[in-house]
Amino acid sequence: MSEQKSSSFQSVPWRVGHGFDVHAFKPGDHLMIGGVRIPFDQAFKAHSDGDVLIHAFCDALLGAAGLGDIGQHFPDTDPAYLGIDSTRLLTHVHALLMSHHWRIGNADLTIIAQAPRMSTHIPAMRTRLADLLQMEVGALNIKATTTERLGFTGRGEGIAAEAVVLIVRTDTA
Amino acid sequence: MSEQKSSSFQSVPWRVGHGFDVHAFKPGDHLMIGGVRIPFDQAFKAHSDGDVLIHAFCDALLGAAGLGDIGQHFPDTDPAYLGIDSTRLLTHVHALLMSHHWRIGNADLTIIAQAPRMSTHIPAMRTRLADLLQMEVGALNIKATTTERLGFTGRGEGIAAEAVVLIVRTDTA
Amino acid sequence: MSEQKSSSFQSVPWRVGHGFDVHAFKPGDHLMIGGVRIPFDQAFKAHSDGDVLIHAFCDALLGAAGLGDIGQHFPDTDPAYLGIDSTRLLTHVHALLMSHHWRIGNADLTIIAQAPRMSTHIPAMRTRLADLLQMEVGALNIKATTTERLGFTGRGEGIAAEAVVLIVRTDTA
Ligand SMILES: [Zn+2]
Ligand SMILES: [Zn+2]
Ligand SMILES: [Zn+2]
Repeated sequence: MSEQKSSSFQSVPWRVGHGFDVHAFKPGDHLMIGGVRIPFDQAFKAHSDGDVLIHAFCDALLGAAGLGDIGQHFPDTDPAYLGIDSTRLLTHVHALLMSHHWRIGNADLTIIAQAPRMSTHIPAMRTRLADLLQMEVGALNIKATTTERLGFTGRGEGIAAEAVVLIVRTDTA
Repeated sequence: MSEQKSSSFQSVPWRVGHGFDVHAFKPGDHLMIGGVRIPFDQAFKAHSDGDVLIHAFCDALLGAAGLGDIGQHFPDTDPAYLGIDSTRLLTHVHALLMSHHWRIGNADLTIIAQAPRMSTHIPAMRTRLADLLQMEVGALNIKATTTERLGFTGRGEGIAAEAVVLIVRTDTA
Repeated sequence: MSEQKSSSFQSVPWRVGHGFDVHAFKPGDHLMIGGVRIPFDQAFKAHSDGDVLIHAFCDALLGAAGLGDIGQHFPDTDPAYLGIDSTRLLTHVHALLMSHHWRIGNADLTIIAQAPRMSTHIPAMRTRLADLLQMEVGALNIKATTTERLGFTGRGEGIAAEAVVLIVRTDTA
């Protein structure tokens, strides 16, 4: 899928992307969310470490850049990604964007979970991800919300995450 | 979380944000949605008035500006916010953004509900929120959709809302 | 809802929009998604062809331009839209945006479905929609994700879709 660099393209140096991800629970003792280890009485059922927030973020970045989705870049049938630390996927996606002349303008990430309580962990997630991506923490927001005991997140069957990003051409002012 | 005003930051005067909120029903006689009172045979179970659309909107604004989330600014354990009119939360969030040199470029809000029928109330919501924020109504869109009787909104257990916003630096042209 | 062309409006030539749609299954032999026919043992229960991805996309475009929502433009009680090919709705929405001096900067669309497997169909969807809208394929991303067997999509009761778009004034550089 080649990118035609037309004059109309030149005039739109910004793009928006959106990501959504879900992981189910299995018995366990911690969750990885936003690159941070959170003690909990469940774990993510996943081929990777199941970091639902990073996965939604990766999908938003790939989506904005027109580069497909995370399932295409890191197939969950590939043993190379078994149990992988998702921060490595994010670093890879970020490098890919930079090689396509995009950088992250800002990102706004949302964790949708009934439990565990996220608020105390969010500052560590923001610092961790901003460090990885060499972004200012002010441009990488993370929020948490519940679904008020409704639906699969409300019943504590798993966690969902959403992400939106704005990316910017690196070859513009 | 201080904001470093680097040259790279200067070149990105726009930011995107996303909000998601859910409130469950309890027996009652009306709902507050988008600052408008809608007669209905249920009410929102909530610490505030439960205005799910305004809450998603606030979260999108805070998220775009890198200012956390609504739960952090208005804890639902704080008696000060018991039964509060959510338009007051929105006004507060808007003032906070302006003090951080951001204004709203545009907002696109979505109500996800099986019932009541929203279409007749949407013009009033748009006018009400645009007035509060001193925005043109054309830049503050509100949509409604159902989940075709699927999931918790489809079963009439509650209502969800989503919001996206674009905010703009006030100190740029 | 007239649009005031104030000086502050002039300085915001970009807008963001978001769409969400759901359709339930009924017995059948194919689905229309992203304008592509996908053989499957179910069909969409819908007034139109039920193309959930195009509907979310239309809602995001209308939302960004401040033009309401798809239910307002194409009421599902209107026999004119019975069984309609949703690509015709998209073409109509696109023409409407252009007449309001907007063009699509980029779009990022997400299909949320447990089955059928979407990945093999996505290149055809991207080509089909990009052709219809005369966009480069690199600016029209389509992703697919599951909800890991959770919720109504996970139980195979239907399919959801989300879309974000950035639109740009045609009368700016
Ligand atoms: Zn995942
Ligand atoms: Zn709320
Ligand atoms: Zn639809």
